Amino acid sequence: MKHTDISKLFQNSEDYLDREVTVCGWVRTSAEVKPMTFIQINDGTTSTKNLQLTIHQERISDEEYKSNIKPLLSLGVSLKATGILIASERNGVELEVETIEMLGDCPSTYPLQKKKTSVEFLRTIPHLRTRTNLMKTAMMIRSRLAYAVHSYFTQNGYIYLHTPIITDSDCEGAGEMFRVTTQPWNASYNTEEEYFENDYFGQKAGLSVSCQLEGEMAAVGGLGRIYTFGPTFRAEKSDTPKHVAEFWHVEPEVCFADINEIIEIGEDFIKYIIRDVMENCSEQLSFCDKFLEKGLLDKLNHVVNSEFARVDYTDAIEILQNSGRKFEYPVFWGCDLQTEHEKYLTDEHFKRPLFVVNYPKDLKSFYMKQNDDGKTVAATDLLVPGIGEIIGCSERETDYDKLVNAMTARNMPLENYQKYLDTRKYGSVQHSGFGLGFDRLVMYVTGINNIRDVLQFPRTYQHIY
Amino acid sequence: MKHTDISKLFQNSEDYLDREVTVCGWVRTSAEVKPMTFIQINDGTTSTKNLQLTIHQERISDEEYKSNIKPLLSLGVSLKATGILIASERNGVELEVETIEMLGDCPSTYPLQKKKTSVEFLRTIPHLRTRTNLMKTAMMIRSRLAYAVHSYFTQNGYIYLHTPIITDSDCEGAGEMFRVTTQPWNASYNTEEEYFENDYFGQKAGLSVSCQLEGEMAAVGGLGRIYTFGPTFRAEKSDTPKHVAEFWHVEPEVCFADINEIIEIGEDFIKYIIRDVMENCSEQLSFCDKFLEKGLLDKLNHVVNSEFARVDYTDAIEILQNSGRKFEYPVFWGCDLQTEHEKYLTDEHFKRPLFVVNYPKDLKSFYMKQNDDGKTVAATDLLVPGIGEIIGCSERETDYDKLVNAMTARNMPLENYQKYLDTRKYGSVQHSGFGLGFDRLVMYVTGINNIRDVLQFPRTYQHIY
Repeated sequence: MKHTDISKLFQNSEDYLDREVTVCGWVRTSAEVKPMTFIQINDGTTSTKNLQLTIHQERISDEEYKSNIKPLLSLGVSLKATGILIASERNGVELEVETIEMLGDCPSTYPLQKKKTSVEFLRTIPHLRTRTNLMKTAMMIRSRLAYAVHSYFTQNGYIYLHTPIITDSDCEGAGEMFRVTTQPWNASYNTEEEYFENDYFGQKAGLSVSCQLEGEMAAVGGLGRIYTFGPTFRAEKSDTPKHVAEFWHVEPEVCFADINEIIEIGEDFIKYIIRDVMENCSEQLSFCDKFLEKGLLDKLNHVVNSEFARVDYTDAIEILQNSGRKFEYPVFWGCDLQTEHEKYLTDEHFKRPLFVVNYPKDLKSFYMKQNDDGKTVAATDLLVPGIGEIIGCSERETDYDKLVNAMTARNMPLENYQKYLDTRKYGSVQHSGFGLGFDRLVMYVTGINNIRDVLQFPRTYQHIY
Repeated sequence: MKHTDISKLFQNSEDYLDREVTVCGWVRTSAEVKPMTFIQINDGTTSTKNLQLTIHQERISDEEYKSNIKPLLSLGVSLKATGILIASERNGVELEVETIEMLGDCPSTYPLQKKKTSVEFLRTIPHLRTRTNLMKTAMMIRSRLAYAVHSYFTQNGYIYLHTPIITDSDCEGAGEMFRVTTQPWNASYNTEEEYFENDYFGQKAGLSVSCQLEGEMAAVGGLGRIYTFGPTFRAEKSDTPKHVAEFWHVEPEVCFADINEIIEIGEDFIKYIIRDVMENCSEQLSFCDKFLEKGLLDKLNHVVNSEFARVDYTDAIEILQNSGRKFEYPVFWGCDLQTEHEKYLTDEHFKRPLFVVNYPKDLKSFYMKQNDDGKTVAATDLLVPGIGEIIGCSERETDYDKLVNAMTARNMPLENYQKYLDTRKYGSVQHSGFGLGFDRLVMYVTGINNIRDVLQFPRTYQHIY
């Protein structure tokens, strides 16, 4: 008999009640309460909701119980059971077991025991931590959020673009790229040129830090409205709860859109994906609200229902200076906003998500549109109460000469960016886009406070596992 | 006035006819046919369908025409036009221009001129080739296929997993991994150990060739049913129309499923995504049918409507031996099926997509379930008429000892696979999965015969652009 997903037994119970069903799963808890034995199993189709299997001890011989049932009571054992699904006041539904068999044993060396384990310990067993409520919940919310991203852009006519991971240009110019090579560790060449000539690509290559330049080339290169959603890489040596060397990045690029239109799109997008996950992962978000961040659901509801505010950077500085608040970092025109500043603006002054617009150009990247004041660029960060920046957004500089000047001022090697510059030469158009760090979004939506726990196998400085 | 997508003017013309609309786009063709001037533009929201702008020369002064309209007639110029949308027998709808302005000029050095350009030439200008019908079509079909992949798995309760790109294990054991490092090209160490100890991760690291091992760990590690969809990498030096160094890979992994169930899933999946793209990209597929592969639509219809066949590898060998056909490569039990063999089976014998099941174990990977005959593994390739293998599929070996033996026989370093082996120790379950090379699927669905043309920025041996 084919097995049925446990999620279906709960969701469509009317289809299965009082009928025979077969289920598979891993043992989460078990208890012997004479004359009954209870085993709770999970098969991955639900996060924290387990199916209770009920065994009547008196219906089996002692010998059979000992040889067939007893070994199933250990945490982590995988099993298959057939029985009648019955209604249960406490659990919704339960399975009255008729036959049950072990699929895979789980010896007592199993590292996930009943005692509470720390997240730090769980990170050392990434391959098994997906059996915990925390990771199951995180992975399900992450998956649904990713689908919401794809749905939003597809419904709105964006083309999903697979931009290359291996690249020769450093979009952010931060020099924190990983190098990709097939040369052995002890390859010996006299010159750098010779080394790279003999490498796989015949030139220097590294892992992309952002897909934006390719995204711009595709959009202005004729596709009009595109988005990328893939892994990007930073070889930063930061060992913080917010940094991983490999993270997933969402980057739309929209032709014929100015800064105001991309702000509208950003707001619409964030509300859409949060609303979607609230509708489709309510069980998982309730778990997060209860165990990870009290008030999480209120926070998300607030984002979905508030009209995001906008403030000019210059006005934001004034608000901070007039706040009467003593900040650790000094506030002056030209300063980068620190967490404490952002927090004051979103949590106390505006009390809702906030776009800070028109930052001083020296704080921002070369590709952002230079405003007429000569001092600022048409760039904005969306700051959200409780976490700070969630997307970074800008209109792009479309004027060839201004762009070249900005690159030259930053000592960027123009010869590596000829194709990018071409897009400003052949039918240049106004265009804007934003970048969303997907892993940080998952942190925000789940209340998980360490990025290592929103990816099953995070990559960080000095750690492959 | 905000601009409207050209696709909407065609699709929902009743909402716009006889009203004023504004459009933006790049000039695809233009013609002066006194007393009219016609300009066809494309904004990326349609692939090959352009919007015709109609200008009445007599309504403008000669001077104005010369200074404002003439410069718009060059290929590649970007412009913005406002006017009344009218019905047109030839084009469906057209725009009677009231005002028009240049957004970005396009000098005569523009490499995409009207004369027919070769695909080889277009590959040298990846950033501009998205303005051609071919690439627009390819990118739109690719994007929709990707969305269909996500939709299929989401609707069927799979968790989308972001597995790491940077890894220390070589799933296929083929040794064709790129190395990832932050060591400079001329780093000098006495020992390999010292070199890697001082590298970013403190150990050797490379780019993933397959997400399967992580996928298995996640599925058996508690998530039950997962899929991955991300880039994978092979440092092969093959310079063929089917090889790129960086390609996108779809890999589901399903617990509690045997080889027969994963075959059913594979068939269902392929039919779903092809049906989806036929429904949502009919304009694009008609273009492909007309210009890239005559009979493409028939081919796809056939796949969607036929019941896929199944044959045991051993029987397939017999069929080939009894075919009376002279093959270039000899046919014998134990031989790998060559293109000519696959072609005979799918195109001539079975005349429909075909799963060849139970391959000799020496032809296949260590992780596949060893059948009781001691000679074969529960692996299957789905062969499709006209292209050959499209997915590779297997039940996985769940027995710890058998798995270790298979790895040892292949000289694999067991110490690198301890976590993977753990999944066979702690609640091991039957599980199966498959791998689909997404780029080759796009080739199959579009009829494009070079993989370099289904990715905007392909990465191949000796070529970053």
